[in-house]
Amino acid sequence: MRVLFITSNKGKFKEAKRYLSPLGVELIRGRVDYPEIQADDLEEVVRFGLEWLRDKIDTPFFIDDSGLFVEAFGGFPGVYSAYVFKRLGNKGLLKLMEGVDYRDAYFKSVIGYYDGEIHIFRGIVKGSIGYEKRGEGGFGFDPIFIPHGFSRTFAQMTIEEKNKISHRGRALKAFSNWLKENLQNE
Amino acid sequence: MRVLFITSNKGKFKEAKRYLSPLGVELIRGRVDYPEIQADDLEEVVRFGLEWLRDKIDTPFFIDDSGLFVEAFGGFPGVYSAYVFKRLGNKGLLKLMEGVDYRDAYFKSVIGYYDGEIHIFRGIVKGSIGYEKRGEGGFGFDPIFIPHGFSRTFAQMTIEEKNKISHRGRALKAFSNWLKENLQNE
Repeated sequence: MRVLFITSNKGKFKEAKRYLSPLGVELIRGRVDYPEIQADDLEEVVRFGLEWLRDKIDTPFFIDDSGLFVEAFGGFPGVYSAYVFKRLGNKGLLKLMEGVDYRDAYFKSVIGYYDGEIHIFRGIVKGSIGYEKRGEGGFGFDPIFIPHGFSRTFAQMTIEEKNKISHRGRALKAFSNWLKENLQNE
Repeated sequence: MRVLFITSNKGKFKEAKRYLSPLGVELIRGRVDYPEIQADDLEEVVRFGLEWLRDKIDTPFFIDDSGLFVEAFGGFPGVYSAYVFKRLGNKGLLKLMEGVDYRDAYFKSVIGYYDGEIHIFRGIVKGSIGYEKRGEGGFGFDPIFIPHGFSRTFAQMTIEEKNKISHRGRALKAFSNWLKENLQNE
């Protein structure tokens, strides 16, 4: 079975392959620019993307979106995490958090799969925002995010460690579990 | 001539009426939810909105979008100003600006008009970010924005004063000037 992953990110594609190849899925990377809307949650963004893409692609395909949601700021930067990271960086977010004791935050990842119908899969990892940047791994807000149950940031973990507990890893897990069951029933 | 202004904002509608009614335009308020995309500039957002709406509306119509662009942050919050205001408020933006000497910023407004073709009109007002909130008028980031040539913030001005120099007023002026010429040529 052939499945397209519409993404410009090679790292994401590689990670997805690790989950889907063992199921006998032939994963192909597709590059199509699609609009991402402004919305309060990732599900809406992904749903709109699928609806926009579905008439243009005749193979089952999926897209994804992720964000960091800081509880003290009502979820900011959330859906706009990539933009906010580019403009303000970890430095900006740490500055906003100065004097803020309530540091709970979570990373969330949403995968939207289309096979004639829309299927949504989610992965969440809860944690907190640190007081300084730590670690050289990962990307984006990883150096200031400490997942619950750990004392290290995402950026201080190996890729394997991080993928095992990450939002994206969990969403991929949910997706591949569903796909596995679905393929068996065919 | 009938023109639809697609907006949920009664204040905006009233202001637009003041510019367009004198031209003999019968301005109607339309309420249609349309997607606003994530983009680096307002023009893209407005253009996408027009393209999404144009097959659904058979009268000439326009939409608008505005934002505050802070130079020190590469334009943040820009296209996402309404969201960032809701989540961080003036307090958050002032906190980000602590220790930042370069305080230049501008408000920008873009109007997109569709009459079988797309026409884009812009209004910009340059100024700077103050060091504290001042004034009770206006809304959003008005209490921390001081337009060039003034010592008061937008929130310290009367509506009439603000409208005369505001980004939205200027975009409406550009639009109504164009419309005036265009109607005369018909």
